Amino acid sequence: MRTGGTTYMAGYHELELVTLLALLEYSILGVMVGRARQTYGVEAPATTGNADFERYFRVHANTLESLIVFLPAVWIFSMVVNYHFGVALGLLFVIARILYAQGYLSAAAKRGPGALASAAINAILVLGSIIWIVARAL
Amino acid sequence: MRTGGTTYMAGYHELELVTLLALLEYSILGVMVGRARQTYGVEAPATTGNADFERYFRVHANTLESLIVFLPAVWIFSMVVNYHFGVALGLLFVIARILYAQGYLSAAAKRGPGALASAAINAILVLGSIIWIVARAL
Amino acid sequence: MRTGGTTYMAGYHELELVTLLALLEYSILGVMVGRARQTYGVEAPATTGNADFERYFRVHANTLESLIVFLPAVWIFSMVVNYHFGVALGLLFVIARILYAQGYLSAAAKRGPGALASAAINAILVLGSIIWIVARAL
Repeated sequence: MRTGGTTYMAGYHELELVTLLALLEYSILGVMVGRARQTYGVEAPATTGNADFERYFRVHANTLESLIVFLPAVWIFSMVVNYHFGVALGLLFVIARILYAQGYLSAAAKRGPGALASAAINAILVLGSIIWIVARAL
Repeated sequence: MRTGGTTYMAGYHELELVTLLALLEYSILGVMVGRARQTYGVEAPATTGNADFERYFRVHANTLESLIVFLPAVWIFSMVVNYHFGVALGLLFVIARILYAQGYLSAAAKRGPGALASAAINAILVLGSIIWIVARAL
Repeated sequence: MRTGGTTYMAGYHELELVTLLALLEYSILGVMVGRARQTYGVEAPATTGNADFERYFRVHANTLESLIVFLPAVWIFSMVVNYHFGVALGLLFVIARILYAQGYLSAAAKRGPGALASAAINAILVLGSIIWIVARAL
């Protein structure tokens, strides 16, 4: 928090923008799943049966698995540890998910670096916040 | 907040209620998946193998995919763009997901309108907030 | 909020810690899925094909399905109903998910108690908040 004055969100447009960019990125990955469904002829409700479609599906699903950690964690980290460091980590997360999607969509074996990068960012956000809060309470 | 002013949420009961309704709706869809598991004889951990069960499963899963965007976006939109417009879009989202579930559960081919409606609401929330924040900063 | 006082999160370190613990727990379940992928030889993008792997996968996926309700609901409940009761329910949720994972990973038939416990906590958080807000508005 900065001090005094403003609302939780009112002074946090950079953090809001990073949050919204992550949501936009995830939404685009969702549109790509819909197109892959048509391209590879996988009819709803099926989500399996074609390995190419499944890579699109898993890129989207894995990003959801990352976002459920990232979204609360980047806000808590930015509020309690350091606002600008939190925003910067948020931007890196958005970039890491692009690398992840590019890698995974080229070949399943190439999903590692992007996955590791976003997991590392989430670990810093979660563990950094826990350590900071506990250390301050002691 | 405990002291001073009001809390982030204290003056936002309409937005909280819309949020809680969306969570309640999602929880009901989850209960329906559990019942469908018994009705169609799909034993955990399997989530495939019966197309009727899979429609229940996908209605629930797709609603999760929508909520991860909707929940942060409706709060940011309501805080930074317009509170009452945000709450109204939130109510429309809850209704759109009912239409989506009703359509998809009657036939996979009928999932389109509800899916499009909730995607359009999420797009307004995300893109509207981005445009508003960027435009104000210029 | 908009005027006066402190920030939304500044005085809520217990609630932040419970939130972060739930995210850490979920992240550990995710690491366990990655290891199970190797142990049981299920290659990405597949998420099915081996019932043992699928139990790890579903423990993680079902925890995500719970978190999308838990995370907003525990914050709203703690803000509008009772802060300390909300934090306590949050701690119980983290414990319930450990029981759920332990049960499910020993046998699919043993996933019930932990699943019920976390669903009950989410129901209290969501319905309790709705009832409280509506009752106060009347």
